[in-house]
Amino acid sequence: MVSEQTMKQAMQAYIDAFNRSDVDGIVSLYADDATVEDPVGKAPLVGKARIGPFYKMAVATGAKLALAAPIRASHGNAAAMAFDVQLNMPQGRALIRVIDVMTFDATGKFASMRAYWGPGDMQLLGPA
Amino acid sequence: MVSEQTMKQAMQAYIDAFNRSDVDGIVSLYADDATVEDPVGKAPLVGKARIGPFYKMAVATGAKLALAAPIRASHGNAAAMAFDVQLNMPQGRALIRVIDVMTFDATGKFASMRAYWGPGDMQLLGPA
Repeated sequence: MVSEQTMKQAMQAYIDAFNRSDVDGIVSLYADDATVEDPVGKAPLVGKARIGPFYKMAVATGAKLALAAPIRASHGNAAAMAFDVQLNMPQGRALIRVIDVMTFDATGKFASMRAYWGPGDMQLLGPA
Repeated sequence: MVSEQTMKQAMQAYIDAFNRSDVDGIVSLYADDATVEDPVGKAPLVGKARIGPFYKMAVATGAKLALAAPIRASHGNAAAMAFDVQLNMPQGRALIRVIDVMTFDATGKFASMRAYWGPGDMQLLGPA
């Protein structure tokens, strides 16, 4: 089983890679056959060939992530974190409040990511 | 599908019931056949007959919950929230940093609860 420390370091590396717009850095944290369900309730993306373009698009919005509370681990191969995303939308600058849950494979890569946020967790901050 | 508002209200009701040590109030938010995995990585409790005693024990620790960030919903029947728990342990007063993920049945009751926290998310605050 991966350690709490390994899981939290990978979650923090995800935040950091996002904030330097490093798509390759983000994708390198995932297992080859990982799944991404963002937001929860949509059909998951399966595999790096689908996950890469998703993050390329996300980074293109200028999205920056800030932890809202310390990252949580678990007693299993999973961890979770609450954060706020600021990004540019066609309507203007926006904030999305998100909780991501990651599961991990034996090598410490993300096996799955699920992003909990709904329409009501998004708000416009002002003009672009 | 249950609305974002219904899910967030139920999550807030969970926090509020905990903070008035209202075990019946907590358990009433669950579906009869619900599952509770707290912490994630342990075998889940299945059904209200198992869930009731779990919360009776939790409330007996004097546990009080405080949201660490606004509750998140999703585009499906699930929501998540980050909070801090203060409680009394044999070793003294303690803080546990938790993220709970709930799924909901069609009537707005919790179908499942998973609590993400690891040993490293717990810290002693001082003597009891």
